[in-house]
Amino acid sequence: MGDAKFDVLGIGNAIVDVIARCDDAFLKQHAMSKGHMQLILAAEAQALYGAMGPAVEISGGSAANTCAGIASFGGNAAFIGRVAQDELGRIFSHDIRSIGVDFDTEPSADGAPTARSLILVTPDGERTMNTFLGASVELGEDELDHAKIEGAQLTYLEGYLFDPPLAQAAFHEAARLAAQAGRQVALSLSDAFCVERHRAAFRGLIQGGVDLLFANEDEICMLYEVEDFDKAADAVRGECRLAALTRSAKGSVIVTPDEQIAVEAAPVDKVVDVTGAGDLYAAGFLYGRAVGCDLKTCGKLASLAAAEVISHLGARPETSLSALAKAQGLIR
Amino acid sequence: MGDAKFDVLGIGNAIVDVIARCDDAFLKQHAMSKGHMQLILAAEAQALYGAMGPAVEISGGSAANTCAGIASFGGNAAFIGRVAQDELGRIFSHDIRSIGVDFDTEPSADGAPTARSLILVTPDGERTMNTFLGASVELGEDELDHAKIEGAQLTYLEGYLFDPPLAQAAFHEAARLAAQAGRQVALSLSDAFCVERHRAAFRGLIQGGVDLLFANEDEICMLYEVEDFDKAADAVRGECRLAALTRSAKGSVIVTPDEQIAVEAAPVDKVVDVTGAGDLYAAGFLYGRAVGCDLKTCGKLASLAAAEVISHLGARPETSLSALAKAQGLIR
Repeated sequence: MGDAKFDVLGIGNAIVDVIARCDDAFLKQHAMSKGHMQLILAAEAQALYGAMGPAVEISGGSAANTCAGIASFGGNAAFIGRVAQDELGRIFSHDIRSIGVDFDTEPSADGAPTARSLILVTPDGERTMNTFLGASVELGEDELDHAKIEGAQLTYLEGYLFDPPLAQAAFHEAARLAAQAGRQVALSLSDAFCVERHRAAFRGLIQGGVDLLFANEDEICMLYEVEDFDKAADAVRGECRLAALTRSAKGSVIVTPDEQIAVEAAPVDKVVDVTGAGDLYAAGFLYGRAVGCDLKTCGKLASLAAAEVISHLGARPETSLSALAKAQGLIR
Repeated sequence: MGDAKFDVLGIGNAIVDVIARCDDAFLKQHAMSKGHMQLILAAEAQALYGAMGPAVEISGGSAANTCAGIASFGGNAAFIGRVAQDELGRIFSHDIRSIGVDFDTEPSADGAPTARSLILVTPDGERTMNTFLGASVELGEDELDHAKIEGAQLTYLEGYLFDPPLAQAAFHEAARLAAQAGRQVALSLSDAFCVERHRAAFRGLIQGGVDLLFANEDEICMLYEVEDFDKAADAVRGECRLAALTRSAKGSVIVTPDEQIAVEAAPVDKVVDVTGAGDLYAAGFLYGRAVGCDLKTCGKLASLAAAEVISHLGARPETSLSALAKAQGLIR
């Protein structure tokens, strides 16, 4: 990692996931778009929670999950995101710190409670998320720790952060600071509907200088308004030096101006809950980049981490990713 | 269930479990007695939480878990226990209600927060519990809903409730009310150290009229101050009409004045977390009694429920126990 204090600094919504199982009929009944994230207001969150079955609370948040994954690989990660001074905020803070991620964003003192995502997992393992952003909307430029951005080899921004307006401004500022310090910027598109809401802003940021882009098939097609994955891959090749595009069970494709590398998905006995699959894919890829692996190996580390997280409930690793990667001979 | 509104009314501590994995060295370092429950104060809870790894929050509480199990079998259960008006209290209340358990004990308005148990799970699946009782100590006779006790075929009391002094008084009163209404009283000994702390009180309650006693091998030996399981079984036979004694992987033994029935443990692929094993054993047994199964079948339902809960993290069923029991031909 050269002179950098952190391999990766993640900036994202600080969320506790509230995960319950349900059947497909429940999603229909509540007019949810399966597999996607929708934003909900406090009153909607209360009503939906009342209708949901028994749940489990596990720390989440897209970039935060990625940071947890990097720590599990043995990397140095830091996270910036905003919780409130409440029980869920203490849970989020404990969980991310206890795995060794540097996190000290000042909790918001008043206003909305800590963000939560009400996640419904169907029997096929697909997850449908209903996020109440709460205190996450109070993340703004004031919370950006310049020293951390300048001290991180790579600043990783989650696309979900385009939704809270203050955060979107902070997002652009963080990218500017990182570039100015000669650091790299990575971006995840997060969700196709999120891309649809903020397409122009995403395109602007990418063209302005994103060094590494993560997206799944739906998201990259939505970004370039094409139906075909290959067309989307061609489009991103013209705008970004490096993109890692995931295709669920079909694996992923790493796109650079010069080459296109296909990576197989890692095998999974049973898909329990796909929450965090993209986040952990990013974790493996970013960790691989940080320790100087070639792109193919980065993709394999990414697939390995994604496979671990979808084999159990919750979006953070339950097994040491470092041990898994060593067992597979991907890292030493 | 005849004229009873509920199959079982459970009275216990209303707790949210905070479950983290650790190695045996961590238990030693923190001077914990592996496999047991110890009570901790607020400051100790804070210090221990700070030292623990990332955790998952899942509703727990011994009798509450039993009620959840009975509901999962399709039975009618009610629960009495005290939470605070805080986020963990809302989580506890949501989870137990959402599975169909009747729960409307007034939350305590001020004072201590909702109880939590910091649970460390070692790689062998054993759990070691550190419980901060919080608002649970504010459960007293005022919270006993007489109509519910009189309307439940069986009132089930968790031994852990002997620790909070107000609750112990409520415990005796609940047993008195149930007996007066011609209902049955069941008791779980909960933990060997808990038995050691309250041996005389437990013995008094049992002799005064407990219709059904649940205990594991350590607990029943601790109660009668004997080293040998058979001696403990003989002792309980003289004091209680029906006892179900669990012996972990060796299964369980049902003891009555006339017979002793051995029940095998149900097979488990991998023991992930034994938290709730005794609670779910009780759930299966009580449900069997409520629907009129013979004792052997009650024991099999109990083993089945215990096997389900130790195959995953957390102390409440993740699979419909009704469906499992039907698949095995234990109930129709």
